[in-house]
Amino acid sequence: MIIRSNIANYGVKFTDNLKQDLDRDLKEECCFVVDKKVYDLYKDKLSCINTKNVYLLEATEGNKTMTKAQELIKFLLEKGFKRDHKLIAIGGGITQDLTCFVASIMFRGVEWIFYPTTLLAQCDSCIGSKSSINVGTYKNQVGTFYPPRKIIIDVNFLKTLDKSDILSGLGEAIKVHYLDPRETHKYIFDNYDKSLEDMDVLRKVIRKSLMIKKSVVEIDEYDTNYRNIMNYGHTFGHAIESVADYKIPHGIAVTIGMGLANYVSYKLGHAEKSDYEKMEELIQKNAKGYEFNLVDPQDQEKYWKALQKDKKNIGNKVSFILTSGFGKMFRRRMELDENVKSLILEYLNK
Amino acid sequence: MIIRSNIANYGVKFTDNLKQDLDRDLKEECCFVVDKKVYDLYKDKLSCINTKNVYLLEATEGNKTMTKAQELIKFLLEKGFKRDHKLIAIGGGITQDLTCFVASIMFRGVEWIFYPTTLLAQCDSCIGSKSSINVGTYKNQVGTFYPPRKIIIDVNFLKTLDKSDILSGLGEAIKVHYLDPRETHKYIFDNYDKSLEDMDVLRKVIRKSLMIKKSVVEIDEYDTNYRNIMNYGHTFGHAIESVADYKIPHGIAVTIGMGLANYVSYKLGHAEKSDYEKMEELIQKNAKGYEFNLVDPQDQEKYWKALQKDKKNIGNKVSFILTSGFGKMFRRRMELDENVKSLILEYLNK
Repeated sequence: MIIRSNIANYGVKFTDNLKQDLDRDLKEECCFVVDKKVYDLYKDKLSCINTKNVYLLEATEGNKTMTKAQELIKFLLEKGFKRDHKLIAIGGGITQDLTCFVASIMFRGVEWIFYPTTLLAQCDSCIGSKSSINVGTYKNQVGTFYPPRKIIIDVNFLKTLDKSDILSGLGEAIKVHYLDPRETHKYIFDNYDKSLEDMDVLRKVIRKSLMIKKSVVEIDEYDTNYRNIMNYGHTFGHAIESVADYKIPHGIAVTIGMGLANYVSYKLGHAEKSDYEKMEELIQKNAKGYEFNLVDPQDQEKYWKALQKDKKNIGNKVSFILTSGFGKMFRRRMELDENVKSLILEYLNK
Repeated sequence: MIIRSNIANYGVKFTDNLKQDLDRDLKEECCFVVDKKVYDLYKDKLSCINTKNVYLLEATEGNKTMTKAQELIKFLLEKGFKRDHKLIAIGGGITQDLTCFVASIMFRGVEWIFYPTTLLAQCDSCIGSKSSINVGTYKNQVGTFYPPRKIIIDVNFLKTLDKSDILSGLGEAIKVHYLDPRETHKYIFDNYDKSLEDMDVLRKVIRKSLMIKKSVVEIDEYDTNYRNIMNYGHTFGHAIESVADYKIPHGIAVTIGMGLANYVSYKLGHAEKSDYEKMEELIQKNAKGYEFNLVDPQDQEKYWKALQKDKKNIGNKVSFILTSGFGKMFRRRMELDENVKSLILEYLNK
């Protein structure tokens, strides 16, 4: 799969032979950034990279920062990293964000390669060129558009993921499928249950998700307009993550966020009840065990504040992606008035 | 003057009415980043900007860092800066670097406007899209390509500059004039002396310098090949700055660096003696009072090390811009062998 980019086209390859791909990359001057957890779990499989410099990253939200980026840059400079060398990231979204950001600013841009190891990274974040970096307590306020030269997907990495990480990835898979203006959304309904058990089905879900996302990011890579539909579930979801102190995995918070978007859309007259109910099916399945409510008035206040802080907002209005049904998402900037607040509480506290 | 850019075309305007231009910009949501020294010197002239948030920057090399960039970003977020707001920089190269870098990464890119106040920034750095940021003791290893939306030049700011800052700016003006493949280099010979006394002549030198630089950066904005001639005098010059502990202003170090490049070129048989001698005329004038020598063996060692650390190097070779005469600069990657070292010492210690 080739992704057309304003910066440089790049490819996604599904591999059955990780070692072969790594050996090819190892022939060039490079340095690795590896999620420490992945490195420990796959010591043998990844032993070949030890001939190069390896930076092990504690892949936590608290390390997805400009401070950590500086630390990585210093490490690279100390190791003699040059502008014609390559950065190779092995890990999930946090490893991707940090490596992408550093690659985009070091020497004003060096090449990087990405081996995503989480479902969320494989089926969604690995394409689209974005990096997101935190500054102090401000989340994802900094970043760049800078795609890797190539992405190598080995679904075998998914075998050691927790169930919650699989559900988190499937949340984003549901998102892109729901966004598709064609009938593709049926695919995720037919394959959701199987994908939890069968790696081949999961691989197909990943490929399908990337195909849909590709069609969006190729139209609006720089997120000036059309691509904002990818934010479906995210404004509501980010605020959930924030109130839940990031104890709800990202893709699951997005799942609940989509449920909220659908409910608000239905109640405001944008979507049919039948669409809302159909969409709710997979959302309920995927968010199961991660119920999130806003009964506590203090939590409610926190939630309204978090919504209002979203970086997509302009002026006083909050920017939501609403829907008129499958494949019919649209942006609406709304005041967070009592009516909207009560719809949000209705859905979450039902 | 319009500069064509891969990112977005932008204009340079010479103004006689700073207040009018500022008033126009003040109509939009914006935040200012201002060199503290400039702010203090031009309190009255700049009083209109106090209706907006103003970040005063101690414009030192030690503040041109990722750490300072983070501080500025936090300031902006605390002040409620949004993605449709503008950053407006008023100052020299350091203010430009920091603002450009922050504008390029905040919300993955916000618009910025630049009012350059030093000769160096007005006649050279203001166009070309680059930002350069230090990380720890590593200089200019981080950066982005991100032009402002427009550049407003008011030469009246130059009236309060030290002589050394004027000479520093003229160093870069000499550089671009020497680079020009046409006969434009004669312009700087005819006007160098006058430009030190007559603001109208200086303004013309600035415009001419930008016209030449524009023709280079429009061909190779991302510095992949042709634009490297802009680095003429810089590999030698950066190493001079480093050994002199940044006590020699940048443009003057570059002036001496060009002298070195010309001498090495002549001695290696690339340039005629007559060309070297002609070029040396303005270099001697412009570097007067800033003699730099390498008599001390410890300084010599520092200098070789600094040359070898230059970020343009690839592998063990050092990347120099040499010349075959006016408008005929070319890159040569060379080992820093005893022959080259002795030529460098010959020139500096003569």
